[in-house]
Amino acid sequence: MGINTDRQEIRAVMDAIRQSHHDKNAAGVIAQYEPDALIFDLAPPLDHRPDIEGLSAWFDTWQGPVEIEAHDFEITIDGDIAFCHGFFRTSATTRQGGEKAVFWSRATVCLKRTNKVWKITHEHTSVPFYMDGSFRAAIDLEPKSKENAA
Amino acid sequence: MGINTDRQEIRAVMDAIRQSHHDKNAAGVIAQYEPDALIFDLAPPLDHRPDIEGLSAWFDTWQGPVEIEAHDFEITIDGDIAFCHGFFRTSATTRQGGEKAVFWSRATVCLKRTNKVWKITHEHTSVPFYMDGSFRAAIDLEPKSKENAA
Repeated sequence: MGINTDRQEIRAVMDAIRQSHHDKNAAGVIAQYEPDALIFDLAPPLDHRPDIEGLSAWFDTWQGPVEIEAHDFEITIDGDIAFCHGFFRTSATTRQGGEKAVFWSRATVCLKRTNKVWKITHEHTSVPFYMDGSFRAAIDLEPKSKENAA
Repeated sequence: MGINTDRQEIRAVMDAIRQSHHDKNAAGVIAQYEPDALIFDLAPPLDHRPDIEGLSAWFDTWQGPVEIEAHDFEITIDGDIAFCHGFFRTSATTRQGGEKAVFWSRATVCLKRTNKVWKITHEHTSVPFYMDGSFRAAIDLEPKSKENAA
């Protein structure tokens, strides 16, 4: 039950989320969250709680798998809480139009351990926006070190 | 040195950041961060480290104070790490044009205690973006409960 075990368990949470996106299994994603987890998501509103129907509807906007690759993830743990940060490379094909979409986002994931199980209690994913007056979401950025898959 | 003291100390960090924005004191803001803190900011790039010059230049784009109000902040602490999440209401007047800008953002702030001092080791601030094809940053949103200043 050392820090390495903790890290492995938290990486398993992240991997379950990756696999469930690939499978478009909304319940599999949501199972990794506390029921009252606070989510700051890519799309409005500013915050929401875990929402299987909403996630299923989003999955339905893509054909085939939704691939999310975690890069540069660092995990900090003490006692029964942890926070992680890194980047996701999301790639999928739109159902309407069949266009391949690929974009990078930032992610901060905060977890709590209850009854020996790590669950996500807070998640924040985003892209920045251009402060050039256009207010465009910056979905065309890449992290400085793309090679460090983690 | 109980959990209430920890909370007070972390609230003091947040208040120092608020006051330093009001005073447009970039060094005062940066003093609350670890030198190698990872920041996911409102503006590109995807990530950066604490940057006094960059923050000073941003402060210079406003006339008068930059006011940031923290709302609905919740703090989770265990051992020597903590994470917080909530909303900021930012208001300031543009130097060019003299327009009053007011917008809400989400913030996740992760801290570590080293030598009895709490410093920010990671910060993530953002607004969502509209997935309606416009990719507009959603700077027109408000949290559900604006009344809970914290």
